[in-house]
Amino acid sequence: MSHIYVYSPSSAVPDRSVIQRGVKRLEALGHEVELDKAVFARKMRFAGDDEIRLAAIHRAAESGADIALITRGGYGLTRLLPDIRYKVLAKAIDRGMSFVGHSDFTALQCAVMAQTGRVTWSGPALGEDFGGEGEPDDIMQACFEDLASGQGEGAGWQLPRAESRERAFEAKGLLWGGNLAMIAALAGTPWFPKAKGGILYLEDVGEHPYRVERMLTQLLYAGVLQQQKAILIGQFTNYRLAPHDRGFELKTVVQWLRAQVKAPVFTGLPFGHVPTKLVLPVGAKVEMAAEGRDAIVVWGHRH
Amino acid sequence: MSHIYVYSPSSAVPDRSVIQRGVKRLEALGHEVELDKAVFARKMRFAGDDEIRLAAIHRAAESGADIALITRGGYGLTRLLPDIRYKVLAKAIDRGMSFVGHSDFTALQCAVMAQTGRVTWSGPALGEDFGGEGEPDDIMQACFEDLASGQGEGAGWQLPRAESRERAFEAKGLLWGGNLAMIAALAGTPWFPKAKGGILYLEDVGEHPYRVERMLTQLLYAGVLQQQKAILIGQFTNYRLAPHDRGFELKTVVQWLRAQVKAPVFTGLPFGHVPTKLVLPVGAKVEMAAEGRDAIVVWGHRH
Repeated sequence: MSHIYVYSPSSAVPDRSVIQRGVKRLEALGHEVELDKAVFARKMRFAGDDEIRLAAIHRAAESGADIALITRGGYGLTRLLPDIRYKVLAKAIDRGMSFVGHSDFTALQCAVMAQTGRVTWSGPALGEDFGGEGEPDDIMQACFEDLASGQGEGAGWQLPRAESRERAFEAKGLLWGGNLAMIAALAGTPWFPKAKGGILYLEDVGEHPYRVERMLTQLLYAGVLQQQKAILIGQFTNYRLAPHDRGFELKTVVQWLRAQVKAPVFTGLPFGHVPTKLVLPVGAKVEMAAEGRDAIVVWGHRH
Repeated sequence: MSHIYVYSPSSAVPDRSVIQRGVKRLEALGHEVELDKAVFARKMRFAGDDEIRLAAIHRAAESGADIALITRGGYGLTRLLPDIRYKVLAKAIDRGMSFVGHSDFTALQCAVMAQTGRVTWSGPALGEDFGGEGEPDDIMQACFEDLASGQGEGAGWQLPRAESRERAFEAKGLLWGGNLAMIAALAGTPWFPKAKGGILYLEDVGEHPYRVERMLTQLLYAGVLQQQKAILIGQFTNYRLAPHDRGFELKTVVQWLRAQVKAPVFTGLPFGHVPTKLVLPVGAKVEMAAEGRDAIVVWGHRH
């Protein structure tokens, strides 16, 4: 069992019962859950003003918990980046804490990687992934439990049939990524990770393929995509195509991307704003392999 | 009267009659209008594939026209930036050509400024601004005619009452700007203008205030906003606030911006995805002044 510290660094929690249900689910798994005192704070659309959310992040880091888990994403972390005390987070990580989240949380993860080189985790948010009315997703929960128990050593998924590889692909590098909009929004800033020779994974929600392409273009022109050994395309969901698109869709963007970079672009990664999400380390040295329809990323023991 | 060359560098024209009506209006003003041969080309959502749109840009530059006017914005210029022959555009501009447009066109304007230091013009698109069923906006048309006749020397607007200045503000610098999403999408790339000590103006459409703030944050963290002598906020339109925003609105973002930068932030600039738009030079040395409720930007004679 793990000590899980729950806090709200981004948007306000609109419905307490979702969080309460999530807490009960984690407790039923045997974990001890501690709620930050500002977990339900609210200032306009934010979970409290900047000062309150900053303090919550630092309390999470100093809580001595095994896992610091966000209630939800939304928007708000970008504003805080210059004022986060990265040394405090680094110290917590060095003592064994895993910071877990996704979506808006990607901003903090990139900044921690850029400023400290420490590892954080792309994974569930308490509300969205544990607090729903239905049962939590099996794969997400198994990955989370692997992280909590320190047993996780890697993650695998099945490639689409069209990407089946006869010749095995292998690469070593820093795994990093998350929400594309958050990553693109950090280009040209001090919070953008240096990840030459990395393995980059991306997801997004509610972004039309042309916007996805524009964001990828930014990362291309900034020299980032060309430096990756592999690009992993996660789930892009909840956007609406228009009649005017006339066949321009996410697939078109992936084709375009493949024409821009030499590194392989793998799709189908189970990660994004979807129930089935792997838990992946941002900033960890990994080995990636793909053969046939099997893709795997291995980071080895963390504890 | 001017020779106006009309071309489509971005999205496909969905309705030819809009363009035909725009052409008639310009002809009625005494201009000679030449349509690029690919003006109605289509490839998915684009006005032809990348090669076709690139060729159209270069044909426009080599047409010998006084004004190169886009049919419409949309999306598509970002993809072309590495392959545009900037020297060809610079030569055309040096011979007196004015490239005019807005929205997606901002990408080309930034790139021309970054690569050549030449001036392009934020202003109308043929379809949207001259091809509508109603009459073109008086102010837009007067500004466009000033540009066409070489008589434009500046533009002014009225500040909101709350921004009325007792002490006059004056600044000299490079005027630049346009669509915020396009500008933010170029941060960290070679197409981003160097505009230390500049006067930056911004507009956008269909972007929620939290996204506007996130884009401004990128320009802040990239060191751009701090280097400006003034920031001019144009029209931000056609977004939808949510109940969850609880009072977070564009005004909140402008307040936040004012707390981040020392330079004054003026609002109310008549520019954006609205009928009443000034025609403004991107990359020109200007003098700006604000006193009482009057704001003015002067660039002097261009011809």
